[in-house]
Amino acid sequence: MSSVFGEKLRVSIFGESHGLGIGVVIDGFPAGLEIDLEKVKKEMKRRAPGRNKMSTPRKEKDEVIIQSGIFEGKTTGTPICGLILNTNQNSKDYSYLKNVMRPSHADYSGKIKYKGYNDYRGGGSFSGRLTAPLVFAGALAKQYLEKHEIFVGGHISSVGKVKDNSFNTLNETKKLFDEISEKEIPVINDNISSEMEKEISIARENKNSIGGKIECMITNVPAGIGDPFFDSVESRLSHMLFSIPAVKGVEFGLGFAISEIYGDEANDSMYIDNEGNIKTRTNNNGGILGGITNGMPIIFRVGIKPTPSIGMPQETVNLETKENTILEVNGRHDPCIVQRAVPVVESAAAIVILDLLLSSGLK
Amino acid sequence: MSSVFGEKLRVSIFGESHGLGIGVVIDGFPAGLEIDLEKVKKEMKRRAPGRNKMSTPRKEKDEVIIQSGIFEGKTTGTPICGLILNTNQNSKDYSYLKNVMRPSHADYSGKIKYKGYNDYRGGGSFSGRLTAPLVFAGALAKQYLEKHEIFVGGHISSVGKVKDNSFNTLNETKKLFDEISEKEIPVINDNISSEMEKEISIARENKNSIGGKIECMITNVPAGIGDPFFDSVESRLSHMLFSIPAVKGVEFGLGFAISEIYGDEANDSMYIDNEGNIKTRTNNNGGILGGITNGMPIIFRVGIKPTPSIGMPQETVNLETKENTILEVNGRHDPCIVQRAVPVVESAAAIVILDLLLSSGLK
Amino acid sequence: MSSVFGEKLRVSIFGESHGLGIGVVIDGFPAGLEIDLEKVKKEMKRRAPGRNKMSTPRKEKDEVIIQSGIFEGKTTGTPICGLILNTNQNSKDYSYLKNVMRPSHADYSGKIKYKGYNDYRGGGSFSGRLTAPLVFAGALAKQYLEKHEIFVGGHISSVGKVKDNSFNTLNETKKLFDEISEKEIPVINDNISSEMEKEISIARENKNSIGGKIECMITNVPAGIGDPFFDSVESRLSHMLFSIPAVKGVEFGLGFAISEIYGDEANDSMYIDNEGNIKTRTNNNGGILGGITNGMPIIFRVGIKPTPSIGMPQETVNLETKENTILEVNGRHDPCIVQRAVPVVESAAAIVILDLLLSSGLK
Amino acid sequence: MSSVFGEKLRVSIFGESHGLGIGVVIDGFPAGLEIDLEKVKKEMKRRAPGRNKMSTPRKEKDEVIIQSGIFEGKTTGTPICGLILNTNQNSKDYSYLKNVMRPSHADYSGKIKYKGYNDYRGGGSFSGRLTAPLVFAGALAKQYLEKHEIFVGGHISSVGKVKDNSFNTLNETKKLFDEISEKEIPVINDNISSEMEKEISIARENKNSIGGKIECMITNVPAGIGDPFFDSVESRLSHMLFSIPAVKGVEFGLGFAISEIYGDEANDSMYIDNEGNIKTRTNNNGGILGGITNGMPIIFRVGIKPTPSIGMPQETVNLETKENTILEVNGRHDPCIVQRAVPVVESAAAIVILDLLLSSGLK
Repeated sequence: MSSVFGEKLRVSIFGESHGLGIGVVIDGFPAGLEIDLEKVKKEMKRRAPGRNKMSTPRKEKDEVIIQSGIFEGKTTGTPICGLILNTNQNSKDYSYLKNVMRPSHADYSGKIKYKGYNDYRGGGSFSGRLTAPLVFAGALAKQYLEKHEIFVGGHISSVGKVKDNSFNTLNETKKLFDEISEKEIPVINDNISSEMEKEISIARENKNSIGGKIECMITNVPAGIGDPFFDSVESRLSHMLFSIPAVKGVEFGLGFAISEIYGDEANDSMYIDNEGNIKTRTNNNGGILGGITNGMPIIFRVGIKPTPSIGMPQETVNLETKENTILEVNGRHDPCIVQRAVPVVESAAAIVILDLLLSSGLK
Repeated sequence: MSSVFGEKLRVSIFGESHGLGIGVVIDGFPAGLEIDLEKVKKEMKRRAPGRNKMSTPRKEKDEVIIQSGIFEGKTTGTPICGLILNTNQNSKDYSYLKNVMRPSHADYSGKIKYKGYNDYRGGGSFSGRLTAPLVFAGALAKQYLEKHEIFVGGHISSVGKVKDNSFNTLNETKKLFDEISEKEIPVINDNISSEMEKEISIARENKNSIGGKIECMITNVPAGIGDPFFDSVESRLSHMLFSIPAVKGVEFGLGFAISEIYGDEANDSMYIDNEGNIKTRTNNNGGILGGITNGMPIIFRVGIKPTPSIGMPQETVNLETKENTILEVNGRHDPCIVQRAVPVVESAAAIVILDLLLSSGLK
Repeated sequence: MSSVFGEKLRVSIFGESHGLGIGVVIDGFPAGLEIDLEKVKKEMKRRAPGRNKMSTPRKEKDEVIIQSGIFEGKTTGTPICGLILNTNQNSKDYSYLKNVMRPSHADYSGKIKYKGYNDYRGGGSFSGRLTAPLVFAGALAKQYLEKHEIFVGGHISSVGKVKDNSFNTLNETKKLFDEISEKEIPVINDNISSEMEKEISIARENKNSIGGKIECMITNVPAGIGDPFFDSVESRLSHMLFSIPAVKGVEFGLGFAISEIYGDEANDSMYIDNEGNIKTRTNNNGGILGGITNGMPIIFRVGIKPTPSIGMPQETVNLETKENTILEVNGRHDPCIVQRAVPVVESAAAIVILDLLLSSGLK
Repeated sequence: MSSVFGEKLRVSIFGESHGLGIGVVIDGFPAGLEIDLEKVKKEMKRRAPGRNKMSTPRKEKDEVIIQSGIFEGKTTGTPICGLILNTNQNSKDYSYLKNVMRPSHADYSGKIKYKGYNDYRGGGSFSGRLTAPLVFAGALAKQYLEKHEIFVGGHISSVGKVKDNSFNTLNETKKLFDEISEKEIPVINDNISSEMEKEISIARENKNSIGGKIECMITNVPAGIGDPFFDSVESRLSHMLFSIPAVKGVEFGLGFAISEIYGDEANDSMYIDNEGNIKTRTNNNGGILGGITNGMPIIFRVGIKPTPSIGMPQETVNLETKENTILEVNGRHDPCIVQRAVPVVESAAAIVILDLLLSSGLK
């Protein structure tokens, strides 16, 4: 379903970047969770634009008005509606884009699908702004998971060709996740931050943009969650992850690299540890076997393309005049969205994992 | 849903490798398609084991008995049930695996999920054999798509570190797809076949296994199919693709590589061709923008891990004795499943694309 | 799914009667429909309380703020969010109901389900007020259907034992539907209005309430819509209709009465009319055979129970003290909700029929 | 979804009455239930034709071949496929019905939907025979429910105008359910059996048919199951019940009769019994309030139309010649299907209740 996701936890997003507001309805969220609204705001802020010189100067508060589903500070079990009013949109910026298609944007594919009736301003319903409600839903999901000692953390694993270290796939702590989330450039290895910043600055100065990768980990998910085939944990996670604008690749564990090695290198040897727990020596499968969790941390990476809106002149078409034309996209665009996408990826993961756990009977 | 996939075209698979039979129920397949059963058999044969020295010597005919949904040679519009009886299973082979977990298999995660009641013989419901019904469903879907001039083709893009050429992402012909499908090693560049065979032979001789990648393309899908967010074409394709056992990565267009370059390199410039069609100069987005097709070929790659069943000694656990142990997996296993997985990947793609088109009102 | 309904047209409602607001997200509504907002308001008003002496004196404007999905007066094809702020709630009225369960209300079953965390004020998420967003969604659906010459009309078929005439099951006009919808007591036979009013007045004066039945018809639905078995038109309509609070029965065509007669009386003879159309002489099956429309008008009735909130003393329990107690429900309650439920039933029908038609490829 | 039903327990039926076979795939059935196959056979026999002089003389064994999902006598947790081969079909009986539409059958609506490609023999996929797989699925569901002390029982509540007694809506025993299920005419009050038989005999002798009603009860369902609005217990039960061919009405508790009385008569007073349980003095709401169970028995009735296949001459149309014609339906038809439908209705209820319980976290 296009704007609805999930089996037990159903997330339904709505809105256009330049309409009245955007938001989300979260159905099936368990009753009785005391929500820490400060923590929610912190998550929203991680994604919000205008945070530093590496993102768009456009400032949006992304304040969520909770219309329903939270009563006396606790979730009621009935649908939670979070509404974010659009306050800083500048619709005139976009009028020249009504018929001129931005390359590698959804302008053209969306125009065909919606027969030209969709709101073209600022990407409309395709706007990355629609990930704000996702982060709100994810922030709630994370709080629920944390109550069950399940933690979700992400970091930039690369910007362009500048690479961060990797998570230790056998174990990471909530403390590390929290530390990374506080950083302006959310990486493990602070020594590469300035290099990443430089890569982004170069892109911005050239009216260009740059892509990157995000690595994400979920710890303490019990073994036995998920299903073979069409509800594999990979299937459900990737379904959600590929709904994040600009994601072009998803891989679990070693990912594509596992396809280049031999079975004896790839296989995760098993052993019983001193406490009688069944573990693996490596985690090349990213915590999922046969579509089902095996108790090791779930680990995946997504590849994010460079922001398609760039100021450099680009060859494109005008659908009204039916002519080829040159476009220079003005407006306040991010030269790199990877740092802002980290909480989005974490949120997507948190939503899916909570949904899977609720489907498995977690209460 | 675990064993059911799709919105308008619903595919429901069942069976264990060593039970009476395996099969699929296909609901929502359009009425009135004349089925070419010879073509279906050909597709089944591409996946079937025992085809050559590079696969398991286990021979299975994989003959599909059509229980319903085809009448007087044509689809009725009502559910099609295809049943494949298990004829060559050798259950004694597997008895020693009841409590000894094969590393990187679903043995352990499945045992937890199903509380030990699932059929452990030959992987049971996790067996790669369950992809046979998928190929049957895919063969029907392909025939429907071909009527609408939509073609699905795949090839091995690598085995271990041996790489095939890539598809021309701007266009490929059905003729090429057909030629590749006839080959024992389905590649574009025949010069690398022997090198691939050698890679597989080395793995087999060492009682080891090797992984690989598959590239798949769907041509002539009209623009405007799919949805932003949770029903993006990438979401639905990846959902299905990650349900294929051993797939650990999925990427569209340039995939992860797009995350390493600048926007001006990544963006697909648009132009109007001489016939007035809107096209892109490159196809780095793999035919999908904002989750919606843009009329260019859809192109993706999957990464497949080495077959986890290897004859080399491996460290693992015995759940009954609760002891660490060493396992050498006997039995008739494929040293490489990549060549057999090509029609599976194509089938998965054909099912999803047909479902998407039916959802869009194709009749 | 609890708060999400539909396959192609997905309606997701949210809100509690005494929270900030209630509303609906409508996903999958076709692009390009020019919305007549005056007509929408008219529908909202038919359901709104405080309209006359037969309903609660509580006045609510039920003004819908459209957050998204309508741009320059037309639907965009992306999710439409309609928000209704709660303005006239009087939460103190309900505080005494926190632990004292109103008989035949959802107070007890809801408290068990949501572990006591749901908003108990005014029925919370169980409130009949949640049907306001449904009417909004239905009003949009009706406008789309009317463009395709499909009309939905309803009337009170009984209040208590006072009966209205029945629709002519072979045909009715939009004109009649419109006329009925303008009436204070929406019936066919105006001669029985005063008797119905009297029945309702008696209930109100006695601090009691009274139930009734609603008959609804959808004309011009083409033959061939729906599916056998689990997506029968009856299945989908009844699923939605039984989600309307207080509905305890649904029947199609002759309904339960058909079970008391012989086949030759029940069967609808077929004939070809002068224009070559295939019709039936009677419409005892209510336009649906084998779950699929046959081109005759769809006709059904719902049975609605008396409003459970009555001022008369009732035996019930206090969950806090764990004692039996006597309750007199104060507050501003409808002695009869049947007249206000007519547009709700029509809306439910319109939503389902539009969903079915979109699933069948209507554009 | 047309041939797939359920959220956690997904039932997917297939087959035509005159194809190779019919069957069902049951996905999501919990692992580890020891199946009593004798009990399953007994349920199949209750529905099977040819049991006595009141049903069709057509004999079918309806033996279920379990293709998957049961291993060493216990459910594996993976999809259970039950296949029933068609052995006694007599396709020639039906050839004259290719173009002549049987009134009140799905012949015409199905032909439009499937563009004439569906198997018209014996009703094809619309055949009541498709309820056999449902009974198989229901028989398994019942065994699971019984383990949790939840019992499902039904009886004929009327045939034509001959009425049986009603269940005591406050409580009934498994013993009574079992006794009724053993009877040739499954009623509570044996004194009316002969009158019912007579009513059926009259219909048969006149080449006519007769309808009836079935009452069904589910005891011991815990309070708090279900959801408000679109997943109300009534919504899900009615969705499934209206998928049973010939059902034209569904009502819960007092049903339509509750719409004719006052609130003080309709409301179910609550009290705490001697053991501290919360109960109601009456059960006019049939165990469901606000869409959620309240701990009282669930009770509902369905209205079943007379078998449309009757030998009497009927006015109808020939789609090939496009002429009005007279049809006398030959073949071996039931003059009344109500007695055979009792286990079907029970099965439908068992499937839905098990699905709801699994969705609520039952293990």
